[in-house]
Amino acid sequence: MRILVINGPNLNLLGKREPEKYGTQSLWDIENGLKTKFPGVKFEFYQSNVEGDIVNFIQKGTDGMTDGMILNAGGYTHTSVAIRDAVAALKIPVIEVHLTNPHAREEFRHTSLISSVCKGVIAGFGVQSYELAVRALTEERP
Amino acid sequence: MRILVINGPNLNLLGKREPEKYGTQSLWDIENGLKTKFPGVKFEFYQSNVEGDIVNFIQKGTDGMTDGMILNAGGYTHTSVAIRDAVAALKIPVIEVHLTNPHAREEFRHTSLISSVCKGVIAGFGVQSYELAVRALTEERP
Amino acid sequence: MRILVINGPNLNLLGKREPEKYGTQSLWDIENGLKTKFPGVKFEFYQSNVEGDIVNFIQKGTDGMTDGMILNAGGYTHTSVAIRDAVAALKIPVIEVHLTNPHAREEFRHTSLISSVCKGVIAGFGVQSYELAVRALTEERP
Amino acid sequence: MRILVINGPNLNLLGKREPEKYGTQSLWDIENGLKTKFPGVKFEFYQSNVEGDIVNFIQKGTDGMTDGMILNAGGYTHTSVAIRDAVAALKIPVIEVHLTNPHAREEFRHTSLISSVCKGVIAGFGVQSYELAVRALTEERP
Amino acid sequence: MRILVINGPNLNLLGKREPEKYGTQSLWDIENGLKTKFPGVKFEFYQSNVEGDIVNFIQKGTDGMTDGMILNAGGYTHTSVAIRDAVAALKIPVIEVHLTNPHAREEFRHTSLISSVCKGVIAGFGVQSYELAVRALTEERP
Amino acid sequence: MRILVINGPNLNLLGKREPEKYGTQSLWDIENGLKTKFPGVKFEFYQSNVEGDIVNFIQKGTDGMTDGMILNAGGYTHTSVAIRDAVAALKIPVIEVHLTNPHAREEFRHTSLISSVCKGVIAGFGVQSYELAVRALTEERP
Amino acid sequence: MRILVINGPNLNLLGKREPEKYGTQSLWDIENGLKTKFPGVKFEFYQSNVEGDIVNFIQKGTDGMTDGMILNAGGYTHTSVAIRDAVAALKIPVIEVHLTNPHAREEFRHTSLISSVCKGVIAGFGVQSYELAVRALTEERP
Amino acid sequence: MRILVINGPNLNLLGKREPEKYGTQSLWDIENGLKTKFPGVKFEFYQSNVEGDIVNFIQKGTDGMTDGMILNAGGYTHTSVAIRDAVAALKIPVIEVHLTNPHAREEFRHTSLISSVCKGVIAGFGVQSYELAVRALTEERP
Amino acid sequence: MRILVINGPNLNLLGKREPEKYGTQSLWDIENGLKTKFPGVKFEFYQSNVEGDIVNFIQKGTDGMTDGMILNAGGYTHTSVAIRDAVAALKIPVIEVHLTNPHAREEFRHTSLISSVCKGVIAGFGVQSYELAVRALTEERP
Amino acid sequence: MRILVINGPNLNLLGKREPEKYGTQSLWDIENGLKTKFPGVKFEFYQSNVEGDIVNFIQKGTDGMTDGMILNAGGYTHTSVAIRDAVAALKIPVIEVHLTNPHAREEFRHTSLISSVCKGVIAGFGVQSYELAVRALTEERP
Amino acid sequence: MRILVINGPNLNLLGKREPEKYGTQSLWDIENGLKTKFPGVKFEFYQSNVEGDIVNFIQKGTDGMTDGMILNAGGYTHTSVAIRDAVAALKIPVIEVHLTNPHAREEFRHTSLISSVCKGVIAGFGVQSYELAVRALTEERP
Amino acid sequence: MRILVINGPNLNLLGKREPEKYGTQSLWDIENGLKTKFPGVKFEFYQSNVEGDIVNFIQKGTDGMTDGMILNAGGYTHTSVAIRDAVAALKIPVIEVHLTNPHAREEFRHTSLISSVCKGVIAGFGVQSYELAVRALTEERP
Repeated sequence: MRILVINGPNLNLLGKREPEKYGTQSLWDIENGLKTKFPGVKFEFYQSNVEGDIVNFIQKGTDGMTDGMILNAGGYTHTSVAIRDAVAALKIPVIEVHLTNPHAREEFRHTSLISSVCKGVIAGFGVQSYELAVRALTEERP
Repeated sequence: MRILVINGPNLNLLGKREPEKYGTQSLWDIENGLKTKFPGVKFEFYQSNVEGDIVNFIQKGTDGMTDGMILNAGGYTHTSVAIRDAVAALKIPVIEVHLTNPHAREEFRHTSLISSVCKGVIAGFGVQSYELAVRALTEERP
Repeated sequence: MRILVINGPNLNLLGKREPEKYGTQSLWDIENGLKTKFPGVKFEFYQSNVEGDIVNFIQKGTDGMTDGMILNAGGYTHTSVAIRDAVAALKIPVIEVHLTNPHAREEFRHTSLISSVCKGVIAGFGVQSYELAVRALTEERP
Repeated sequence: MRILVINGPNLNLLGKREPEKYGTQSLWDIENGLKTKFPGVKFEFYQSNVEGDIVNFIQKGTDGMTDGMILNAGGYTHTSVAIRDAVAALKIPVIEVHLTNPHAREEFRHTSLISSVCKGVIAGFGVQSYELAVRALTEERP
Repeated sequence: MRILVINGPNLNLLGKREPEKYGTQSLWDIENGLKTKFPGVKFEFYQSNVEGDIVNFIQKGTDGMTDGMILNAGGYTHTSVAIRDAVAALKIPVIEVHLTNPHAREEFRHTSLISSVCKGVIAGFGVQSYELAVRALTEERP
Repeated sequence: MRILVINGPNLNLLGKREPEKYGTQSLWDIENGLKTKFPGVKFEFYQSNVEGDIVNFIQKGTDGMTDGMILNAGGYTHTSVAIRDAVAALKIPVIEVHLTNPHAREEFRHTSLISSVCKGVIAGFGVQSYELAVRALTEERP
Repeated sequence: MRILVINGPNLNLLGKREPEKYGTQSLWDIENGLKTKFPGVKFEFYQSNVEGDIVNFIQKGTDGMTDGMILNAGGYTHTSVAIRDAVAALKIPVIEVHLTNPHAREEFRHTSLISSVCKGVIAGFGVQSYELAVRALTEERP
Repeated sequence: MRILVINGPNLNLLGKREPEKYGTQSLWDIENGLKTKFPGVKFEFYQSNVEGDIVNFIQKGTDGMTDGMILNAGGYTHTSVAIRDAVAALKIPVIEVHLTNPHAREEFRHTSLISSVCKGVIAGFGVQSYELAVRALTEERP
Repeated sequence: MRILVINGPNLNLLGKREPEKYGTQSLWDIENGLKTKFPGVKFEFYQSNVEGDIVNFIQKGTDGMTDGMILNAGGYTHTSVAIRDAVAALKIPVIEVHLTNPHAREEFRHTSLISSVCKGVIAGFGVQSYELAVRALTEERP
Repeated sequence: MRILVINGPNLNLLGKREPEKYGTQSLWDIENGLKTKFPGVKFEFYQSNVEGDIVNFIQKGTDGMTDGMILNAGGYTHTSVAIRDAVAALKIPVIEVHLTNPHAREEFRHTSLISSVCKGVIAGFGVQSYELAVRALTEERP
Repeated sequence: MRILVINGPNLNLLGKREPEKYGTQSLWDIENGLKTKFPGVKFEFYQSNVEGDIVNFIQKGTDGMTDGMILNAGGYTHTSVAIRDAVAALKIPVIEVHLTNPHAREEFRHTSLISSVCKGVIAGFGVQSYELAVRALTEERP
Repeated sequence: MRILVINGPNLNLLGKREPEKYGTQSLWDIENGLKTKFPGVKFEFYQSNVEGDIVNFIQKGTDGMTDGMILNAGGYTHTSVAIRDAVAALKIPVIEVHLTNPHAREEFRHTSLISSVCKGVIAGFGVQSYELAVRALTEERP
């Protein structure tokens, strides 16, 4: 099973920026953590601050070899019609993930253009949000 | 560990109502499924169609013997300041859960009065949403 | 033929409250009037000021023995997503009824969360609104 | 007893346009149906696509020989202050009628400029909406 | 003189919940305090988390033996058309009371559906808000 | 000097409709009154309930023989982009006139699509509004 | 007959400020012009840039010796509830006057808090706006 | 092939009104130009200032002998639900055409009720807009 | 104890203006009434129609000799950021007072810029509103 | 003649993504089609998912060798002020192009930041939209 | 060179009010600081809490002897059309200045009626904001 | 001292694009001008049309060697949550700069997502805006 994990703007600062808020783990730590915890899954991590590059990477989900996608679009969550269109063109399940709970932050973070084209949303659990998303993609359900 | 699982209006119809949309499992099945899957957790399930009864039950979370709460407030998610206030008064973590993705439905379901006082949000994974919420409350994190 | 007639908050005051506006008939009078006028129909009347109890009663419409429902949700018309969801889960026709014309009253009464999941709306004819709703459910149409 | 029945734009296409949605009866059929069903009532039918002509015809309601009016203003329901003013100038009861339920359609059909000056609203019952309106105008009430 | 004092959702937690914000007195303490301070007034206290039960209790104000009402509707202040309608049906004076100043809190607490059908509003004085309301109902005015 | 006086929907009812509000003079009386008061001016009166006919008549203002226009567009004031465009195409001065003060009436009468393409607005003086408009078009100014 | 003419902020600059837009006449010229044109009327002119002083002067209209008021509130037209309340307290007719047509200017000039408590509005005729207002207050009407 | 070309209010002034903005060609010139340029197409031109007459003419598109329609609804573009409904009832392709770009004009021209029921929109090319619309209806596509 | 009582625009008309609405007492009567009822309190009354003068007077509350302030800002309640800022700069408690209930009046009176920087709000009790405010400032609380 | 054709995010998927909606032609096919159909025009095609790269390419329109531009900004149409500013800086004509009609899709696609700085808009004709845009740039007009 | 420095409501409290937020310098200190730092400039300082007095002082800018103006309108920034109009009537450059950054404060401080008629805005630098404004008015630019 | 100066989309056209509006200096000239004027400061200039590249560059402000940042985000000022988040993560002071006054331009330029996380804003002084920002970062303050 192959899962793409896409991270948007400023997430490359993870671990360095306001660790009391976002925790001390870097994206690299998250990637390794997931690989350790889910040895049967092949992860491909990607981070970019460029909206269009994220669109490019999302389009890889059409290659037929990807089984699911985890998307933390950061600040683009609230403004990017382009990312929304890219997600909408996929046939594989995409899960929107946030480290913090956007609804408990500024007003302009309450609107998500991406949610309505995703399979589900997991927000507010820090690094664990990623783990829960992997489970959502991989676990057997009755 | 004790977790309260609170379910709002119309969730008692689960399994009978539009099974192609909400699945064939009843709330009872969900409860049994969780108990089987997480034998170390003591679950207390509650469902009501009455807003105030849900407020009453949420207040049980202040009894000092509860470690976490999973809340699927159904239609009250979007209108109830009373439930919000009850959640805000708790000190234990509360996780907002939805079977479907509210953002992919009618406009009036895009607003949640409850999200901003919850620890996190998990939406769109059907019955699995509950399981993921249990993990979010119970798992060790690095 | 069986028809459930559900009445929301403050309708128990009918006949006593502002009779110059709502008429002098009580809910009880309406019930008897309908039974006299439509002897071939079996009516079941229900009134509650509690939102959740109304949801409970609406769910009776799924028992397979009910042929139609008349719903005057009173003040919950404008705020209750829970009642809306309960109605949406029914397969029998539901008719929204109002004694007065909500559009000729305060601004916040112009929005109905319930209308769009009902078969039709009849408003503004006082007690006669109920009679017209019964006809709408029972009459043969070409 | 004389009742004017006024039909707005595009209702002359009734029976031909999207019969699966609006039924197979033409306005002519509706008129004959009403005359058969209510032999004691003198109906005068009118249809026009021209907003001002509808205003002209509504003003006939001031001739002292008309006892009631049934108004399906079609698309003008949502935009015409002129029709509203004409209705407001009448002393006889006017009933707003719609074949379908406007609240279950596009957003811009949720606003009615006419409702607040009408005695009542009947919407969503197809051809039967007209019959119910006639009853609302003619029946004895206790 | 008889005064009904109605308290909405979560006010049963008073004294236990966030005492630094709402004070250390319970509802019971408030009731006893009022009885001590105003021995000539017969108080009837009521608290419920259920919207409909509050509507039920407000309707007691029509029994002819009540002289005034003090209403702290809590979170229902901002959402309940049903409570508004129940208050509007009363002939006795009703005073809206809040422990804290809603205008100094979240945006959604700035709208009150109840204020416009009450005689007056007293907000922001903690327990003293109740005492001031009693005076407003009982004192002679020039 | 030639002045066109254009009157929109329902103004043909003037004098008959709600005389306590609009006065007892008919449009015909207004016309005669103006002719008597301003013998040096050639008036051409027009009234129609049809939006497009009013557009047609306004276009007469481009015939080179008209010196000014007085326009009471009635209910079309608030909704007609077509009348606005017709006025905007004129080179002669157009004065918007109302018998009553629209700002003291319903909310939807507070917006005028026509005001911003007119030379000036005179509202609220009943029949005198027309006389003042004639003066505004004919008087010498320092 | 005595008429108060009240002029709001920046109108003292009239004649000097942007004469191509507001004309070359000063307020003093307007006052003299009116006195010459209407010798039978006793005018009292007032100008102030201070909102409260304008409120003070408007209150003079309650002295029983004033027959009418002409009010050009300038920039306060759009923001002053205080001036609105002062006008509302008068029993004599007040006419809102503007040199230019506010509806043809910036968006924030389209709202008038004052219009709805005035007898009428005259806007867009430059200095002539004042003359028309005097006529509106003094002329005999049939 | 037969194409109906429908032109709304004020377009009969074309060529005379503000030629620097709309060009010097009249509607008649446009009609002749199209006939010359597309000899194989049978054009039927129609212009009216009356909203309802335009609805009437659009309904001709249901006669089975029309292959396409070009609609410049002028000022009715932004306000007419009736024209929208008439277009929606057609099965032949309809193309919305504008001489100028409505989005570069006043705010109230940014909303089109008609666009969403048309096959396409061509705006801003002056007379050429009509030619492009004919091509869109007639050209072979790969 | 010293309390400043500040009254905004048009309150100097109290007793004369619409006595059936605001009562027959003048501000002077209110002042004397308070002094009689609360002999232990030193009152300083102030009234002005000028926004800035009210700001000046509020700043006196920083003189160290004032223990509390009662503020009826009249029409400035809804528009004055300056008064809000002046209140916010005080350390003594300020109570917002209104004779009538603003929420039962026009829409633009529902917003208060001042409420959120005041300790509390008392509205709707006529002259008694002032007395209740004095009690709120002076009474011992448990 | 040289024409730049700029395509925004996700248009590189054309032909592969939802062919029943967008057709089976790729961007490459469109480019070749245009070159075949318009041999006298030199086309330069560009596609990017990156907002800033599109700004860079648009700036090439200032090189003096470009005669026109065709811009399909995809999802950036609705959010990019940067693209708008780049277009506004050009002197050559720019035509906004869309394969589908944005007004018939989601609400957030109804706003275009780009339309008002373009010469015209062509939307809804699939691949043919590009051909019509080329004609709009190249054809002689009378 | 002469520069008028105008300060609005509550700025007379500077240095005393919340010094941790606004600094410990008084307006007097600012004035002396500027005079010391810019000996070649003749400053005239003015402060008032009265909107109209500020309008009066701004009008001094038309005396021909003033070269520039620095305006800190305090709370009037967000509400005063009168101050805006006074500034718009000036020909000399006016610079809007704020001690703190209004956009980082309450929502109602985000709107400035004054910005759009000023040459520029400098906000957020405390006392230094004034110095930067002087430089903006006095420095040579390449 | 080291200052990063970041310039957003279309600012690379400075000096060439509309010089009558933006002046004849290029970004390069600005950079050299600042270096000449402030020899003690080490400037690093950056310009990009790509939103994500600007985010990348802003993140350099966390390298510990930067003392301040000047940010002209151009068109991204109004839409970029990503840039806002990047700025918010910095600990050094950031100053928002604009050549022109955005509040004197189109409506959509009145909102800045960036202002509220910057130390201050300087807008409207052309090239001088940059110089003033440097002074704001470097000058000693009393």
